[in-house]
Amino acid sequence: MALPRQDDDFPAWYQEVVKQAELAEPSLARGTMVIRPYGFAIWEAIQRAVDDRIKATGHQNLYFPMFIPYRLLEREAEHVEGFAPEVAVVTHAGGEELAEPLVVRPTSETIIWDTYARWVQSYRDLPLLYNQWANVVRWELRPRLFLRTTEFLWQEGHTAHETADEAVEESLKILHHVYREAYEEVMAIPVHAGRKSPSERFPGAVETYTLEALMRDRKALQGCTSHYLGQNFAKAYGVSFLNRQGEQELAYATSWGLSTRAVGGVIMTHGDDAGLRLPPALAPVQVVIVPIFRTDDERGRVLEASRRLADELEGLRVRIDDRDDLRPGFKFNHWELRGVPVRIELGPRDLDAERATLVPRLTGEKEEVPLPKLGDRVREALDRSQRGLFEDARAFRDQHTFRPNDLVEMKTLLREPGGFMLTGWCGSEECEAKVKEETKATIRYLPVEPSPPEGPCIVCGKSAVDEASWALAY
Amino acid sequence: MALPRQDDDFPAWYQEVVKQAELAEPSLARGTMVIRPYGFAIWEAIQRAVDDRIKATGHQNLYFPMFIPYRLLEREAEHVEGFAPEVAVVTHAGGEELAEPLVVRPTSETIIWDTYARWVQSYRDLPLLYNQWANVVRWELRPRLFLRTTEFLWQEGHTAHETADEAVEESLKILHHVYREAYEEVMAIPVHAGRKSPSERFPGAVETYTLEALMRDRKALQGCTSHYLGQNFAKAYGVSFLNRQGEQELAYATSWGLSTRAVGGVIMTHGDDAGLRLPPALAPVQVVIVPIFRTDDERGRVLEASRRLADELEGLRVRIDDRDDLRPGFKFNHWELRGVPVRIELGPRDLDAERATLVPRLTGEKEEVPLPKLGDRVREALDRSQRGLFEDARAFRDQHTFRPNDLVEMKTLLREPGGFMLTGWCGSEECEAKVKEETKATIRYLPVEPSPPEGPCIVCGKSAVDEASWALAY
Repeated sequence: MALPRQDDDFPAWYQEVVKQAELAEPSLARGTMVIRPYGFAIWEAIQRAVDDRIKATGHQNLYFPMFIPYRLLEREAEHVEGFAPEVAVVTHAGGEELAEPLVVRPTSETIIWDTYARWVQSYRDLPLLYNQWANVVRWELRPRLFLRTTEFLWQEGHTAHETADEAVEESLKILHHVYREAYEEVMAIPVHAGRKSPSERFPGAVETYTLEALMRDRKALQGCTSHYLGQNFAKAYGVSFLNRQGEQELAYATSWGLSTRAVGGVIMTHGDDAGLRLPPALAPVQVVIVPIFRTDDERGRVLEASRRLADELEGLRVRIDDRDDLRPGFKFNHWELRGVPVRIELGPRDLDAERATLVPRLTGEKEEVPLPKLGDRVREALDRSQRGLFEDARAFRDQHTFRPNDLVEMKTLLREPGGFMLTGWCGSEECEAKVKEETKATIRYLPVEPSPPEGPCIVCGKSAVDEASWALAY
Repeated sequence: MALPRQDDDFPAWYQEVVKQAELAEPSLARGTMVIRPYGFAIWEAIQRAVDDRIKATGHQNLYFPMFIPYRLLEREAEHVEGFAPEVAVVTHAGGEELAEPLVVRPTSETIIWDTYARWVQSYRDLPLLYNQWANVVRWELRPRLFLRTTEFLWQEGHTAHETADEAVEESLKILHHVYREAYEEVMAIPVHAGRKSPSERFPGAVETYTLEALMRDRKALQGCTSHYLGQNFAKAYGVSFLNRQGEQELAYATSWGLSTRAVGGVIMTHGDDAGLRLPPALAPVQVVIVPIFRTDDERGRVLEASRRLADELEGLRVRIDDRDDLRPGFKFNHWELRGVPVRIELGPRDLDAERATLVPRLTGEKEEVPLPKLGDRVREALDRSQRGLFEDARAFRDQHTFRPNDLVEMKTLLREPGGFMLTGWCGSEECEAKVKEETKATIRYLPVEPSPPEGPCIVCGKSAVDEASWALAY
């Protein structure tokens, strides 16, 4: 079945491409999903990119239980207020009602900082640089596959430090050297690094940093967050240490997470009307060879040549689509929909002429390549695809970044063509709320370091304290 | 604090080594644990070994939700009977009571086979060869770190096949080529592959295969299981397919799992009175360099030489213990307790003589090695440690395998020295129950293929249908 066109109905396009490419499907419990093998392989590649960088920056993995006694959640006031309405609660286990209900973690600051209280005594025990890969649950009323699901998979880093400066530095290091690299170099998604406004901060954070990307429907997606938590959790859970001056001091915290939502970002950044377009660094299948034949004799020759070719492409993720009951045209669509970066068509006439046809998903342009040169050309095409997808996405984002002069213009631009709106902002919650009310746009990010722009606040006209980037968002 | 001796109090030894080596610790919710970085790095190495082999045998990873509507669990009668008493139940979420309670997966056959019903129509859709890495929950009344915890981490494979033969072959392939290889080649734990007696089968299985290992306290540990499920789950969840004869047929199933319990197996197979002994293939730190110095001048020289040495050992997991506030003797104990396979001591006199002292954890024997030869000697020592731990464990197991002539002798041998007891068994549940009642031993495994032994059943004296291996077990 043909996909809906993105311009006609982007949500329908998204839903269909996730379904037809067999990435994921809804499951029985409200808002949960099955991540199918093709979708999970994309997630595994993202995981590897993130995990490698987490370890390269000196962090270790560990694992905390997913059940958190309810009373723990209650200790940090903002945190409980933020998460209590979303949690799932276990009240019965082992055939009995529990004396105390258990919350299924919506995030793990509470149980981790309660434990850190036992691990930290002196500055010598610091920093703690830990991360876990885990499932978390936040009850969602309007779930969407990958983007917003009741249960999702993520990593959550939780670090403890001697000083505020060191903790802030950590949260920015993660933002730039772990997340931004994974997004830009592996997922080929250009991102803006920034700071959230107070109303968009993580419950309990002093500062929330974010990476924001622009999807093909001109809505923004928050790609991850990295929080500087100050001493809030250390205070709530009693994590103090003997500092270098011989005094007791509360530890400084960060936390940071990137989730399966990133898979949704890959789909919505690169996909087109024919389906997915996957960056080679992520693609479960980088090269598909489609053998073309009519007779049994041709079949034998072409399949043998396909296998030789696959051997020559060693080190790449190559699939030969040797299904006998399907026509080449069907197979082309099948792999196009699944976003495989390079297709190779190989038929008897190609073999006679010692060539093959190479078709990059990025351009769709067919090229006949002599067999001896095919290996090099495939690798070049993959490199070009990785860079090309990034460049396409960056150009698209830059074309959809505007500096409206007033709220009316901003409203118009948000409706058509949509994108990031850069304006001055006075810093007041009232002005922020007014924009949201009138346009549905929210502040996606402020500059990492506050830097007042020249113009006034787009709402009240008072002098601006920050340049805000607004957008409609997922 | 010194560890308890294994022979004096093995459970106390286990508890202390897990604590002092910072592998894991109990957490707040009943029976849950925090897996600390050093313990988690061991689990990550096991995961990699298992995951690589799962993929190499043609399987793909995916992910199913952890919440299962209660009614799904109820469809397979034996399955619900086996697991219902152990499940944790979510009754409230998003601030409201749920219309239908959700079970936190104790294992995922139910939700997976309910989904397979939609994925399987024809024999062309088969086999499904899927696996997931996940957390599961089974309420435990007597939890023990790694061995039996309320929440644990594991992989669970769930495959669907056209024929019974193919499914049986799959379950045995996993047993031998995934699990046995991971146990013997990576964890250095010798295992017996076998079949469970009907009373020890997984609820809903036709046949349960197992790997069984012997711990240093002469108790057996079930290392993993691989189940042939016949058509039980296909029937309960309606997974039928059009077969090659054009008829509707129920699919044949397997499932198989290996959990964080394996970390407990590593500890209890190799550990000695001084602490852990880790196989190099698993060890988070394979080589520790302990610099020895008194003066600042010596410190500078020795640390520089240590770093050069670490560079030469590239590709190995090397740690330099350059902590200034601790004595060498303390550091030796620290890393011995943590089971690091090779220690290198390097002091000013060593440097003058252009040598270092190498101490394998396996033997504890100090050897002075000229610096130019050190790289090769370290690699040799690691190879020897990997093989040596396996050979030690195999010799220990073989020394603790007996063929008692009657139940009285078996009871005596189980008490002292303990181990595997090989006897004839008539196949009756009564005789199996009688042994358990009198000796607490259970049948750990039967031969994979039934092969009646020469002697009679050790209990009733009737002719034996199987050779049973009994042991006290975790």
